[in-house]
Amino acid sequence: MAAVRARSALLTGSNRGIGLELELRDLASRHPNLVLVKLDVADPSAIVDAAKVVEGKLNGAGLNLLINNAGIFTPVSLETVDSEEMIRSYKTNAVGPLLMAQAFLPLLKKAAQDSKEKGLSCNKAAIINISAILGSIKKTPEFYFKPVISYRCSKAALNMLTRCQALTYGEAGILCVALHPGWVKTDMGTQEADLTVDRSVQGLLSVLPILSEKHNGMLLNWEGKAIPW
Amino acid sequence: MAAVRARSALLTGSNRGIGLELELRDLASRHPNLVLVKLDVADPSAIVDAAKVVEGKLNGAGLNLLINNAGIFTPVSLETVDSEEMIRSYKTNAVGPLLMAQAFLPLLKKAAQDSKEKGLSCNKAAIINISAILGSIKKTPEFYFKPVISYRCSKAALNMLTRCQALTYGEAGILCVALHPGWVKTDMGTQEADLTVDRSVQGLLSVLPILSEKHNGMLLNWEGKAIPW
Ligand SMILES: NC(=O)c1ccc[n+]([C@@H]2O[C@H](COP(=O)([O-])OP(=O)(O)OC[C@H]3O[C@@H](n4cnc5c(N)ncnc54)[C@H](OP(=O)(O)O)[C@@H]3O)[C@@H](O)[C@H]2O)c1
Ligand SMILES: NC(=O)c1ccc[n+]([C@@H]2O[C@H](COP(=O)([O-])OP(=O)(O)OC[C@H]3O[C@@H](n4cnc5c(N)ncnc54)[C@H](OP(=O)(O)O)[C@@H]3O)[C@@H](O)[C@H]2O)c1
Repeated sequence: MAAVRARSALLTGSNRGIGLELELRDLASRHPNLVLVKLDVADPSAIVDAAKVVEGKLNGAGLNLLINNAGIFTPVSLETVDSEEMIRSYKTNAVGPLLMAQAFLPLLKKAAQDSKEKGLSCNKAAIINISAILGSIKKTPEFYFKPVISYRCSKAALNMLTRCQALTYGEAGILCVALHPGWVKTDMGTQEADLTVDRSVQGLLSVLPILSEKHNGMLLNWEGKAIPW
Repeated sequence: MAAVRARSALLTGSNRGIGLELELRDLASRHPNLVLVKLDVADPSAIVDAAKVVEGKLNGAGLNLLINNAGIFTPVSLETVDSEEMIRSYKTNAVGPLLMAQAFLPLLKKAAQDSKEKGLSCNKAAIINISAILGSIKKTPEFYFKPVISYRCSKAALNMLTRCQALTYGEAGILCVALHPGWVKTDMGTQEADLTVDRSVQGLLSVLPILSEKHNGMLLNWEGKAIPW
């Protein structure tokens, strides 16, 4: 299995769930200089601060891979949801990834410029937004067992963001893709879920190295299959 | 041309633009008891208050038609947008319509129950969310002349909301559809736009009466053509 050869990667939401496993299996093993940065992606100034810390650690190098994995899931229906919950989920799941990309853009651009690779790839420079099939508007009737309206709306917005990032940042050599990790046995997915964390992360890690300009701005699942909007 | 025979209708954002024209052409003409209610859809408590005022005016009758037309459009790019602007647009364009439907749901349900019509229709009970082709994730590459990221994300979320509302409220006899009015010469659309307000509103008013269960949860344009998500 080909592996991503990104020299530097930043992953949000890595203290448990899919993020923890991604970090342990991939990043820590090939990155002896693993650095943990405390970060609340719902706090704009914390993001700006984290970008400065990371820039310092990178010692003049760029950032190859930004994985926006942090996310929240609140079991609310159309009846029980309120304005605060709609905005809380939007802040973490959609606005957080937007601000992360904004803050780390100079480092991602630097990685793209310093790379000798042609086209777009995770080895060169990429933003990977961990989205969800529950954010697919088209698929909603198939997966309507749970309304989770604040989550669905925030992930639909994240999908739109990914598409716009692809169109804007593609020219600078940065690949932008949204990935659905499957329904995974984590705190969020519960033990009822289909996939073990291990299986989902193995899938995601085998998709990352095959991503190229033809996937720019798409939503793919952990097996690399396209999901409609 | 068939016209909607809704006895009662509520329209947000009606002091200018598409909303004003919709009100003047349709509602005011067939509703001599037109009542204007001051309402900021970004203010949750104002929505609850407005629902009480409207309930009082309806004198025991239900509400047939809720048109969520109020909306804002801010010309920001991925570079210039900030967290506040993302949330401001989301509040008015996505959360507002959600809270409006929540608050007016008892009145919409009453209209559905009191109606003798079969199936779903605007004559019986309907929520019409005025969305935008700029909220179509699929169409984004075709319409990327303007990034307007906060607007696009909020309208993609509104489309997701509409789909969820259709699945949830359909059983109660309430039709839920998202409509794109076209690119219209209003303050928002500017004088560069394709359509006069008159033409767009004529189109929208000819689409409303043909809507049925087969359109529930869809996004259609002012000519009744489906737009992909
Ligand atoms: N599990 C599934 O079935 C599934 C399905 C589809 C998509 N996903 C997506 O996959 C991603 C990871 O989900 P998961 O299952 O691993 O969830 P999880 O077990 O609930 O873990 C979520 C992670 O995100 C972090 N996080 C939450 N809010 C944050 C914030 N404001 N700032 C920084 N970190 C924050 C959490 O940190 P704390 O411990 O500090 O809260 C935690 O590390 C999410 O984006 C989720 O939407 C999951
Ligand atoms: N024009 C286009 O080309 C176009 C294209 C696609 C979709 N649309 C959609 O069509 C709808 C109407 O647009 P328009 O072109 O008529 O826009 P407009 O000329 O800018 O008018 C917007 C209307 O919404 C109201 N509004 C804004 N924020 C509000 C709030 N928080 N609470 C209550 N009312 C509020 C405004 O009231 P105030 O005067 O008090 O601000 C005004 O009446 C919007 O949803 C828009 O997204 C328009």
